[in-house]
Formats: sequence, structure tokens, C-alpha cells
Amino acid sequence: MSEPDPAEGIAWIDGAFVPLPEARIPILDRGFVRSDATYDVAHVRRGCFFRLDDHIDRFLESMAGLRMSLGLTRQEIADILIECVRRSRLRDAYVQMTCTRGVPPQGTRDPRLCTNRFYAFAQPFVWIATPEIQAQGVSLVISDIQRIPPEAVDPRIKNFHWLDLTMGIFDAYDRGALVSVLVDGSGNLTEGAGFNIFVVKGRSLVTPDRGVFEGMTRRTVLELAGPLGLDVRCRPLARAELDAADEIFITSTAGGVMPVTKVDNQPIGDGRPGARTCALSDAYWALHSNDDYIHAVYS
Amino acid sequence: MSEPDPAEGIAWIDGAFVPLPEARIPILDRGFVRSDATYDVAHVRRGCFFRLDDHIDRFLESMAGLRMSLGLTRQEIADILIECVRRSRLRDAYVQMTCTRGVPPQGTRDPRLCTNRFYAFAQPFVWIATPEIQAQGVSLVISDIQRIPPEAVDPRIKNFHWLDLTMGIFDAYDRGALVSVLVDGSGNLTEGAGFNIFVVKGRSLVTPDRGVFEGMTRRTVLELAGPLGLDVRCRPLARAELDAADEIFITSTAGGVMPVTKVDNQPIGDGRPGARTCALSDAYWALHSNDDYIHAVYS
Repeated sequence: MSEPDPAEGIAWIDGAFVPLPEARIPILDRGFVRSDATYDVAHVRRGCFFRLDDHIDRFLESMAGLRMSLGLTRQEIADILIECVRRSRLRDAYVQMTCTRGVPPQGTRDPRLCTNRFYAFAQPFVWIATPEIQAQGVSLVISDIQRIPPEAVDPRIKNFHWLDLTMGIFDAYDRGALVSVLVDGSGNLTEGAGFNIFVVKGRSLVTPDRGVFEGMTRRTVLELAGPLGLDVRCRPLARAELDAADEIFITSTAGGVMPVTKVDNQPIGDGRPGARTCALSDAYWALHSNDDYIHAVYS
Repeated sequence: MSEPDPAEGIAWIDGAFVPLPEARIPILDRGFVRSDATYDVAHVRRGCFFRLDDHIDRFLESMAGLRMSLGLTRQEIADILIECVRRSRLRDAYVQMTCTRGVPPQGTRDPRLCTNRFYAFAQPFVWIATPEIQAQGVSLVISDIQRIPPEAVDPRIKNFHWLDLTMGIFDAYDRGALVSVLVDGSGNLTEGAGFNIFVVKGRSLVTPDRGVFEGMTRRTVLELAGPLGLDVRCRPLARAELDAADEIFITSTAGGVMPVTKVDNQPIGDGRPGARTCALSDAYWALHSNDDYIHAVYS
């Protein structure tokens, strides 16, 4: 057995940093056997975290929403995440922080009796669509699968309930596309596997307002839109609005602002990434040089 | 460090039997980080599995529904489950079989590229309500939380998407009850954390027909009802029908047929376990001596 390459990733489990391929969690952790967990993902670009404090703030809110707590301060969480990246020596990384319910004492399933657990890891950056694919534009399909509704599971608390999204990925592949977006019970669009969706029509920018995770890239785009002369509307987004769109894009920590150029195998606009989408993407990546948004991993 | 007591449980992971408290799965398994998994639970009573073949049949159907497959025959799965119990020396056990999507190759999230993984374990039998509590009857509340609907995730494919059910457990405890049942988008009752619900009114037995996992104890009760003179109806079950019920019970592999004697802190009937519920419970446990339903672990 050769030593694992740290660039494959580093995890923090039970108080120790370990090579990611060797990182394991207890099978009895309710985070696995009941998906009783919340998480957040920050990314590192060119050696710097992007909006790390905002990700940790949201992670703490998510934990509170599930009645979980860790004996860790904000700074301690940040230090662990930074150290995972530092030990991996990665310059571009996907960094996950997870809080699980933990393992209940034998003979009970009372979640109140569990000690919540913290896991973290850094791994090489993941792209939903690589820069090469983004240059051509992403092909998206609208799935008939419904996203789990907020009345069942609050989507603002980032969670692993992804079977609907995963079956949506199969749906996309079956239909020759890269990604799919799921609908809600009224037929409006929600989100896809790890991303939010936006439609540009004239100077108006529309994204669904409920039944979705409020992603950090979504938030950043909402902040950038005004200065770029776009009028933002967070409201229900009907399927038919995709056909009539000037431009469509999806947003994710795993890839940024990604142009969609086909919906259900039909071209959007002239079939090429739109000008406003590209302007938002440029502005998004430009923020990665803004000291107010970044935190250097390496000194 | 002392040797783990095998009676704490035995797991089968990566081709080896290990003490359950030490059993761990890769953190990158999509079964954890995307809850991309299906499972089934059989139980062992007095040294014999109950309906083991039926549980394995359903497990295979669930895997097919998620486009998963293992290189294991039905008999190989059965042999692993039996050996987990045998090595634990438990006479009464809760035995879980799980298939996860597995770990994707670095740089992709394509579920088609994952090698699906099989995990199994036997642990001491778990009771949703112990026999002592069952003798008094269970206190149940109706939660306003909605169960994840079948349009999002097919509940007949047993899965770990339990955040709605887990928040329902908190809801029950907050209101002084042991369990809660969740509603659907129309306000009808669905199921609770690990159990189905039945209402008895006169000679009629009603249980919800959709939006629920079709549990093995539920199936057994449906089979037993006719010979006991009950007329079975699987149909939507309105909240108000609980108030008007003669008897209510819940069913689970983790406890059998369990009488409910309070709903939202109001007594049902005379506040004691009902005669038909007790007859069904007796018939259920009697089947555990019927060679057509059981499989001896120990020779």
C-alpha cells in the first residue's frame, strides 16, 4: 500500500486529520441511517476561501434548525476547515462541513440523547459543468419529479435528502442532458442537484423564491445583479417562462454562474451563453479577488 | 480497551464481519452524503428470522427502483444476515441490510459510475414501544409536518429520508407523547417514524393507501384481518377519523402491533388497548411459531 496523496483530500474525523480516501464514519450514526444531518460547502479558489464566514453562519443556523449543537466556536470550525485545505495543499478545493445527530445510546432512538458529531473534509474542486462545458453552455431538462416540499423538509436547512435530485440526474442523462431541474406540486420550477436556476428576460432576473435551498452563489448573484442593471425578482417561476427566456443560468458553489443554452433539447435564444449571464459570471469570479469576500489559506 | 461484546451487534462491511460499535463506512459514500441508499429491516425473535425471504425480495425490488445492483444472490444476502446474527449470539435482533450508491470516481458525481455497496448488521431488538408501554397503550400526536410525498420520493422504496419523521419525533416529545404521525398535503394521515397506522371502527380496519412505506407488519396485519372477521380498507385516512375510532394501533418490525390509547392527549375509546388490536397482536406473534414464516438462525 502506498501513502495516499494529500491532494486526494483531507478529512477531520473524531479529532484527527486523515487522508480523505480512508475517512470513515460510524455506520450507526443517525446522519447515515436516518440522514439526520446538515451540512454546508464552501470553496477555495486559488488558495483562498470564498465567503467562509457566511458559510459558517449558515451552517450554525442550519444546526439550530435541526436542534443540533457542537461544542465548537465559529473560529474553531473555521480553523478545522482551513487546516483540512492546508494539509491537502490544494489551491482549488470543495470543502464540506457536516453535523450529524450522532449515535444513540443502545436501546433508544431518542435524538435528544445523541451527541452531535462534526465531520469536515477538503477535496479537489468539483464542477457541475467544467469551464469547457460552460463555454458551450449547459443542456438542462425539466423533470416531472417533484422536489421535496418545504412543508416536509425545510430546504433552507442544507440537507442530504437528495433521492429526488439524484433520480433527476438519471432523468437528465436518459434524455441526453447534463442536469435537470425539478418542479413543485404546482408545476413551478424549484432547483436541481446542487444548483439554483435563474431566468433573464429583458432587464429582469427571476429565480424561485420558495422550495429551494438559498445557495451562496444565488445570494451573490442577487447582490451583483443591481449594479449590473438587472431588476431582481424572487417569485414562483413557471415552466413556460423557460421557453420565453432570453437567457438561463444555474448557480452553484460547484461551478459558479453556469450558462444554460438548451432546455429539453431546444436552444435558448441564439443557443449560446448570454451576455448578461457572462457579465454575472465575470463579476462573480472577480469577487474572488476582493478582500472582503476571501480568506487566504496559505500565508 | 476491552473486546467488544458480540451482543452489542455484528456488522458486515467490505467482506468482513466486525463488531458493530467499530463498523464504519466511507464518508464519501453517496449513501451518506446524498442519502443515496435503500435498506430493509428484518427481525429475529427467539432465534428465528420472521419473513426473511419477503424482506429480501422487497430489498431487491427497492434496489432495482433506485437503479442499484449488488453482485450478490438472494441466498448470499440471506447467508450474510444470518451469519451477523449467529456471530452476535442474539436471540432477539433487529437486522438491517443496506445498499448504497457507493463512492464516485474522483472528479465526477455521476451515479452510474459508482460501484454499489452492501452493508448489513444485527443489533439487539429495538422497540418503538416496549411491551410494558404497549400494555398501557401508546400516546400519539398528529403532527402538522407533512410526510415527503410520493411525487418526490417513492416511499415504497425504503429509504433514509427521515428529517420530516425525526422532526416529528421531537414534536411528539414536545407534546408529551411517544410518537407522532405525519399528514399529507391534503391533511390526510400518512405514517410515523418507522410505523404504519391503522384505525378500527366497528368491523372495519382502515390504513392509508398512499404516501406510506408498505411495512411488513402492515402487510401481515392485512393478511390476518380477514380470518379475524375484520373488513380491510386501504384508502385515504382523514385526521377526524382518529377521534371517531373505536381502536387505533401502529405497526412496525420494531415492536409488532402496538395499541394507541391517546391521540393529542385525548383517550381513544375507554383509554385502554382495544380487543381487536390485542387479537391482531396475538395473531401476529403467533405467526412467529409458524414454520412458513420463520427461519431458524441457530441449529
